[in-house]
Amino acid sequence: MKGVMLARAPEATIIDLSHAIERQNIRQAALLIKSAYRFFPDKTIHLVVVDPGVGSNRKLILLQADGHLFLAPDNGVLGLLFGAEHFQAAYEVQCEQYYLAPVSSTFHGRDILAPVAAKLAAGFDPASVGPAITPQTLKKLEFAVVKIDSGQSTITGEITGVDHFGNLQTNITGSSLDNLFGKGKSTARVTVKGETISGIQGAYVYKDPGEMLAIVGSRGFLEIAVNQGDAATFLDARIGDLVTVVELPRM
Amino acid sequence: MKGVMLARAPEATIIDLSHAIERQNIRQAALLIKSAYRFFPDKTIHLVVVDPGVGSNRKLILLQADGHLFLAPDNGVLGLLFGAEHFQAAYEVQCEQYYLAPVSSTFHGRDILAPVAAKLAAGFDPASVGPAITPQTLKKLEFAVVKIDSGQSTITGEITGVDHFGNLQTNITGSSLDNLFGKGKSTARVTVKGETISGIQGAYVYKDPGEMLAIVGSRGFLEIAVNQGDAATFLDARIGDLVTVVELPRM
Amino acid sequence: MKGVMLARAPEATIIDLSHAIERQNIRQAALLIKSAYRFFPDKTIHLVVVDPGVGSNRKLILLQADGHLFLAPDNGVLGLLFGAEHFQAAYEVQCEQYYLAPVSSTFHGRDILAPVAAKLAAGFDPASVGPAITPQTLKKLEFAVVKIDSGQSTITGEITGVDHFGNLQTNITGSSLDNLFGKGKSTARVTVKGETISGIQGAYVYKDPGEMLAIVGSRGFLEIAVNQGDAATFLDARIGDLVTVVELPRM
Repeated sequence: MKGVMLARAPEATIIDLSHAIERQNIRQAALLIKSAYRFFPDKTIHLVVVDPGVGSNRKLILLQADGHLFLAPDNGVLGLLFGAEHFQAAYEVQCEQYYLAPVSSTFHGRDILAPVAAKLAAGFDPASVGPAITPQTLKKLEFAVVKIDSGQSTITGEITGVDHFGNLQTNITGSSLDNLFGKGKSTARVTVKGETISGIQGAYVYKDPGEMLAIVGSRGFLEIAVNQGDAATFLDARIGDLVTVVELPRM
Repeated sequence: MKGVMLARAPEATIIDLSHAIERQNIRQAALLIKSAYRFFPDKTIHLVVVDPGVGSNRKLILLQADGHLFLAPDNGVLGLLFGAEHFQAAYEVQCEQYYLAPVSSTFHGRDILAPVAAKLAAGFDPASVGPAITPQTLKKLEFAVVKIDSGQSTITGEITGVDHFGNLQTNITGSSLDNLFGKGKSTARVTVKGETISGIQGAYVYKDPGEMLAIVGSRGFLEIAVNQGDAATFLDARIGDLVTVVELPRM
Repeated sequence: MKGVMLARAPEATIIDLSHAIERQNIRQAALLIKSAYRFFPDKTIHLVVVDPGVGSNRKLILLQADGHLFLAPDNGVLGLLFGAEHFQAAYEVQCEQYYLAPVSSTFHGRDILAPVAAKLAAGFDPASVGPAITPQTLKKLEFAVVKIDSGQSTITGEITGVDHFGNLQTNITGSSLDNLFGKGKSTARVTVKGETISGIQGAYVYKDPGEMLAIVGSRGFLEIAVNQGDAATFLDARIGDLVTVVELPRM
């Protein structure tokens, strides 16, 4: 993909966002691109090629949102970026004249999205890649909906990823915790894989090395960690495992 | 290597082609560079430093082929690019005045090839790196020859690599399958590690998740995959394992 | 971090030095940056974000040494670069006006060091990041001191890292071996994990594939390797294991 892009847009700066997306893990990629894109320059073109349906009739799409461009298969991987808040436009990619020839049936990232990205980097009008489409027609992210029960002060979410450190990422936002438990979040109790953690820390170092803790990570989501350790191994936890946050019983 | 190159050719664009070549796996690297180079811009300088013989008297070579430049040890890693089809010239690297000083005995990629690549990127004439040599004097790739028996409609090859997805790459080309079994390839039967797969699919999605399939991958070679799974683990398969393709018995 | 830097210094060239530092391994990172920095262009800005104390009150520092700039937490990771030989200046990073807002408590690399690096890349005066500090006030590297007993001709060090090949890196310098055992180093005997290796080789190829050997690696330190094999697995060796070098008994 990089070769294809540089052959067509030699001045482009190409950055790898991650080498650690699990195979075919659309939800993990969706959360990563949502939390990372805003740190990149305006007008960055993000290629998000997690594409288990390559070779089927799933669409390829170009999304314009919040001043950035996103190219991806229409499989939900951009599903967290459709919201009315930042949405600008979406197009189905249908500009065969720019594709590699022949197009393989197994690697559309290289054969279709990379040359289209290069065209866009060189100034091609996004509206020219194909017909405009509405977010309503796009595939939603099949994602565990976070359930927030304010009456019971309970939030239920799930593990959405495991990072290089073995920290468990969840889809529970820090702001939902703030709303329910206050800024200090000291009355929150997190349960995952039968283990319970009291309170949500402001930094890893508030626990001793080897101790388990809950923290709102740098991407804005609740994470479960072991300070200087590996929570995924310690808990034998996997993507999809449930995480609940409840209010500590009062004395 | 990147530091050495940027210190001498600050305008160079440097791309990592792969982080997934197995240690010392000359054949895997040889197949990768053969299948990938043509997607890069003309005049790209490809450094292929899989070098188990570093510190011995094996040569370092510069190959000019198909408008690209390749720097590598003379150990067969460029062996699939010598063919008369695209060959332009080959040189033995002997321009000590550009090497780092001292040259280590364990990392010629950094100490010799990187500074020479930087000189080439800055416009140095390829013919100036050292004496011209003929392809006949270069080390051949020690590679399982694919055996094609048209009478029996049988092709025998081997697994040459395992990708990030656990897909098994082979050295059997898609065109050899086309020749023997026709474009549809529906009468081909693939055997690997005692398991048999009927037909060769056009895309992963023609099989259900978890099902094994044979497919011609995006690099043009036969691959064995498990749709959304890991064929290498499923079959306990390794590089070097035999793969045979025969004609399905007719009713 | 790359997005943050490119948004502020679009012309910067960004290189990943390593994807293989163990989690939180300050010593491994300290040895890598010490052995690698000099291959990069003068004035390179090195970001060294191994930061187990993120969120605590540990300082962030900018070190100027040997014509290069280093940004890192004050946890010893730059501890091998403080020496009088190349030291130029050190500053505590205190220029909140350039930080991302808000600053997270878990990722100061992205929120503080990346934007400061971008300022420096764009020409910002290093002395403007904060108050000058002396090396004496900085955290030393908690590192196994190499013990050299010239009377007994004995050097004791430890394993400091394991590379992609399974080679074991140590903190014993090649020059200390030269001093004690002479350039040939043929009278040195290396012991690690109960196994003994006679002599120190000039290149991997002086041993047969599968044989264990000691060698001074391309970074200038003693390494234990298995030619075309994996010494870490073979010896079940880990970072911190002791390595001793003694003189071979004379006949």
